Amino acid sequence: MKHLLLIIVLFSSATSLFAEEGMFLFNNPPTKAVAEKYGFEIQPDWLERVQKATLRFPGGTGSFVSSSGLIMTNHHVAAGQLQMLSTAEKNLLADGFCAKTLEEELPCKTLELLSLQSIEDVTERVKAAVKPDMSFEAADKARKAVIAQIEKESTDATGLKSDVVALYLGGQYHLYRYKKYTDIRLVFAPEQQAGAFGGDPDNFEYPRYCLDCTFFRAYEDDKPAQTPLHFGWAKENVKDEQLVFVSGHPARTNRAYDLSHLAFHREVLLPRTLQKLYRLETIYSVWGERSAENMRRIKGDLDGVKNSRKVRLGQQAGLLDPHLLLQKKIDSDAFKAAVEQDEQILAEIENLPDLDGFYDVWMSILPNYQFNEQGDAFPARTFQIARMLVRLAYESEKPNEERLPEYQDSNLESLKRSLFSDAPIYEDVEILKLTNGLTYVSEMSGAFKPALGLDQQSPIQRATELVKGTKLFDVAERKRIAEGGVKAIEESDDPMIELALRSDKAARKARKEYETRIEELLKQYYSKRAEWKLLLFGDTGYPDATFTLRLSYGTVKGYTEDDGTAVPAWTEIGGLYDRAAKHQNAPPFDVPESWARNKDKLDLTTPFNLVSTNDIIGGNSGSPLFNENAEVVGLIFDGNLQSLSSDMIYSDTQARAVSVHAAAIVEAMKKIYGMDRIVNELGR
Amino acid sequence: MKHLLLIIVLFSSATSLFAEEGMFLFNNPPTKAVAEKYGFEIQPDWLERVQKATLRFPGGTGSFVSSSGLIMTNHHVAAGQLQMLSTAEKNLLADGFCAKTLEEELPCKTLELLSLQSIEDVTERVKAAVKPDMSFEAADKARKAVIAQIEKESTDATGLKSDVVALYLGGQYHLYRYKKYTDIRLVFAPEQQAGAFGGDPDNFEYPRYCLDCTFFRAYEDDKPAQTPLHFGWAKENVKDEQLVFVSGHPARTNRAYDLSHLAFHREVLLPRTLQKLYRLETIYSVWGERSAENMRRIKGDLDGVKNSRKVRLGQQAGLLDPHLLLQKKIDSDAFKAAVEQDEQILAEIENLPDLDGFYDVWMSILPNYQFNEQGDAFPARTFQIARMLVRLAYESEKPNEERLPEYQDSNLESLKRSLFSDAPIYEDVEILKLTNGLTYVSEMSGAFKPALGLDQQSPIQRATELVKGTKLFDVAERKRIAEGGVKAIEESDDPMIELALRSDKAARKARKEYETRIEELLKQYYSKRAEWKLLLFGDTGYPDATFTLRLSYGTVKGYTEDDGTAVPAWTEIGGLYDRAAKHQNAPPFDVPESWARNKDKLDLTTPFNLVSTNDIIGGNSGSPLFNENAEVVGLIFDGNLQSLSSDMIYSDTQARAVSVHAAAIVEAMKKIYGMDRIVNELGR
Repeated sequence: MKHLLLIIVLFSSATSLFAEEGMFLFNNPPTKAVAEKYGFEIQPDWLERVQKATLRFPGGTGSFVSSSGLIMTNHHVAAGQLQMLSTAEKNLLADGFCAKTLEEELPCKTLELLSLQSIEDVTERVKAAVKPDMSFEAADKARKAVIAQIEKESTDATGLKSDVVALYLGGQYHLYRYKKYTDIRLVFAPEQQAGAFGGDPDNFEYPRYCLDCTFFRAYEDDKPAQTPLHFGWAKENVKDEQLVFVSGHPARTNRAYDLSHLAFHREVLLPRTLQKLYRLETIYSVWGERSAENMRRIKGDLDGVKNSRKVRLGQQAGLLDPHLLLQKKIDSDAFKAAVEQDEQILAEIENLPDLDGFYDVWMSILPNYQFNEQGDAFPARTFQIARMLVRLAYESEKPNEERLPEYQDSNLESLKRSLFSDAPIYEDVEILKLTNGLTYVSEMSGAFKPALGLDQQSPIQRATELVKGTKLFDVAERKRIAEGGVKAIEESDDPMIELALRSDKAARKARKEYETRIEELLKQYYSKRAEWKLLLFGDTGYPDATFTLRLSYGTVKGYTEDDGTAVPAWTEIGGLYDRAAKHQNAPPFDVPESWARNKDKLDLTTPFNLVSTNDIIGGNSGSPLFNENAEVVGLIFDGNLQSLSSDMIYSDTQARAVSVHAAAIVEAMKKIYGMDRIVNELGR
Repeated sequence: MKHLLLIIVLFSSATSLFAEEGMFLFNNPPTKAVAEKYGFEIQPDWLERVQKATLRFPGGTGSFVSSSGLIMTNHHVAAGQLQMLSTAEKNLLADGFCAKTLEEELPCKTLELLSLQSIEDVTERVKAAVKPDMSFEAADKARKAVIAQIEKESTDATGLKSDVVALYLGGQYHLYRYKKYTDIRLVFAPEQQAGAFGGDPDNFEYPRYCLDCTFFRAYEDDKPAQTPLHFGWAKENVKDEQLVFVSGHPARTNRAYDLSHLAFHREVLLPRTLQKLYRLETIYSVWGERSAENMRRIKGDLDGVKNSRKVRLGQQAGLLDPHLLLQKKIDSDAFKAAVEQDEQILAEIENLPDLDGFYDVWMSILPNYQFNEQGDAFPARTFQIARMLVRLAYESEKPNEERLPEYQDSNLESLKRSLFSDAPIYEDVEILKLTNGLTYVSEMSGAFKPALGLDQQSPIQRATELVKGTKLFDVAERKRIAEGGVKAIEESDDPMIELALRSDKAARKARKEYETRIEELLKQYYSKRAEWKLLLFGDTGYPDATFTLRLSYGTVKGYTEDDGTAVPAWTEIGGLYDRAAKHQNAPPFDVPESWARNKDKLDLTTPFNLVSTNDIIGGNSGSPLFNENAEVVGLIFDGNLQSLSSDMIYSDTQARAVSVHAAAIVEAMKKIYGMDRIVNELGR
């Protein structure tokens, strides 16, 4: 503790010292740094292959690992799909799935994967649409209109899904074009006890022993998709200190945040989010514990909440660490000092909106936005469907660029795939979620709201009436209403449609307020700051994560814990049995039944999980970890606890990315799951 | 729903319609009502026997059930003791305990039980000490001084523990004198799976199958205490509709609350408490799940939190039910209308403090009070010990009546028993709790507080330093400091003592503010309202619960659920096996091992758990349910979900008290646990 300042001076402010920091854009790869440090030249065809072979999953990442559309991702990324494919009789999430032939591969209910085809810088065009004298609202509107226009032109011209992405918090705008894969079939998933050995207690911990993998296959025209650009599979195990890459979709980092913004995050937003998560974790756990079938129905939601809670707790621990914060403070002071020396920036700074007085405004707007628009009040799936139907009807009557983005032509196909999915929805889960939502809103913003029908009924009575009354469980009914447009909506006596219709005005208003008063201010503020930082300190190399494709590099590397324990770079398969034995084989540390049965066949010294210094974050789940030959050496599935504050501040002292070792995947598929046909397809 | 108003008019405002409502004082028993309705005359000697044979446990109730000091209470009331008596090798809470002989009965670490000997009305003397023109602070001080004086005089004169209790929220003051039993030994506890079959999912549910009982024995002079006044044990099973009584210590009801006060409770206090509970439930569960030994160490705390959370959720469901609230509104309107007709009250009302503008003040004071004084910031046991030592030193130097009440002579013996207990304290649990407390305070009232040492260390670093640095795990060290007085405190370099000393001023200030500005106002407000209600409507029979001894009457009676399901008045032992089978014997519905082994011996038609209309609430746990002959027919251990809102509003439509049937206790002790010697002692 006593050498605090010394440490700070040595390690802070010089991000270049953290040689492996960075989630790089594919149109601005770290070619120079990697060449200098590792002597490896990133070539354009290598980059194109990695880019096109990496797939965006809902909330995560996957990759093509054969020329016949075979896809690798995490078991936990696939969990939602596995749950949807399950029934009371057949629990694929819990018990796993092995398609022994191509014919047995199981079509998913709703899954759309995206492969990035090209990136185009459209910053000039977007920025030109916003004039300096515009109000926040006008600026937001103008920017959205030009973005919708660019996306539509691109979709019309190329047929590809086209998204304009704001980078550097609005400092740059790039147009991303994606090829969509919509016929995805399940090939192989281990049982959950193997996929998530150690459960929530081991999540974000290391050493680990998880086979957190699932394989799908993309189909086109009812045949396996042809995917010549795919990752290979490494012939040899990765070595200590070896250079490795990760391509994937880190969802969000906040490394550009100001100190005051960080404080607001730490003291207002994060506690608010944590409170919601604690609440949901309790409500879902309690309901799940009532029976095995309840738990099957809620497990996907519950695991998601537990994961979010652990991430937020890790962030919080980082943000409450004075050492990490001091480092940010020194960076901030350096920026201020540099600005003082620059007369042009000093002049411009006058016109910059101020964040300090702004957090009260934020909090006057946020709850309304979260309740009405983000689903805090109505977290039931049938309500979300009702809202989609209502908005689809009214938005379809407007010109494309005036619609809410998700109802613009470029997004309609995806929207309808979700809207008309026959994924199961459970009445009891719907009532549970809606009761909780109505109770939460009553707690936070007043009870007995007539607009929600709570002046006549308690939350549980109201939720029950709505869920039991709606016909939106039926896909045909959804299609009927969607086809009937505004007329069908206005004539509907479905209580969920009525509620969605009645609440829509307030929800749209709340959304507009949030977007024009909060998001717009942040965009203007941080895009300017980004420009100045570029001027003053040069290119820092990469923008904050935005759930778009990024490349990171690093090395396979163990670390040393605070208490002096040396943690080696990888574990072995035998370690799972040892860990289970230490816990008397009690859940969640019990040996999966298939692993107990086949223990004798396994080479227990096979590497199982491994750590590397790659800069990743949530959304990178399912990313391939690969070598210089673009061959898979592992499958990213987690970060350790020390990595969780990298949301705000990267460090490679102890923070590590955690992967399933490629060798463990092959060993288990061959010796436990009888998936030799897939192992052969991987060329192993 | 459509007949809402009709229902309200029929059932509201006339509390007398709810014939079984009431938690009656032993000096104002419901003699007339019981005689009229059931033809049973409550006699003074019957009342004295019930009063003296009922025992106050920490947080609950127990009763003498033999002439040799045998005591019956709930397993969950005994849980803290069972946990303290456990070690890593021998888990009494989980596995139970059977003393086969008197010699094997196991002395508890810290347990003090109270038997109420007499009640004296001291209202006049207390009220006379407070003059009409006194400030809130002066009034609070004057009242506390006279109460300390009364208690001291009584203790000096009788040697009995003497507490002045505020009833009717300050409308009356009664002096309660207790005989203390301090040598308590454990006789019998079933394994937790029998004591709490169905776990948290079944808590507050019905039908139930729990053997939620534990037996202790009081000793005096190292011999079983002579307790001629004790409950008998019923020779025959209780019948449907039979009159039954409960004596015990309902902890707290809020039935006198104003509508605006209820709204404040519902929208501010209750959500705040729930957030804390959700948080603790998550933090404790997650830590407990890491290993079986962690779970053993935290289980008592975790179960307590789960229980509180379920109670609060039930209260919340009631408070968000417009029907229940309408009933309160009609009562409130009736009161207002009556006041309008009474000129004297109208004149007095001018001088009554106003609650409506008061809730903001409340919330400006409460957080500080909860953080600094109530332990939200420092929930570690070693900190509580440090604070006790610090205060003991400084308070001992003051005259008795100027001390904080818990350091006055009449309470010192109990305080020291707790302070010098050698009950185990676990370093890891202490770090967990203190980290959570410091994090919670950082979240709620700003990070990096220098006063807490958080400007140099993160919460976990600081908590670790404090817990690893303190010597207060050692009872001898506590005694050394206690004997050394102020000098020992000021010379101590124990970090926990230093923290307790440094934080004491702020804590005392926060407490004083809360007591003089909030509690005093509430006392003045509600005591006046209580007086007027007495004038306008006559004696309503009983004051809100205050964790003092109360008598309630009711009948054994089933009920009908909202969906039409008829719920019979009692379950049978065989039902436990059926319920386990329905859940594939998965925890928490697994048959306890000893019950599986001895199933053949049991009469499966023995009544197991039963419901009655008695008006009870938390604190009644462990209360005897008894017949007109003061013979035990059951053991209260729970209320059903519908009873939870009786905190605010009593109803006997579906709300029920839940007991273990006396027959099940005898059957299990004989056939499963081999406790024939105790069954014989019960006279069965």
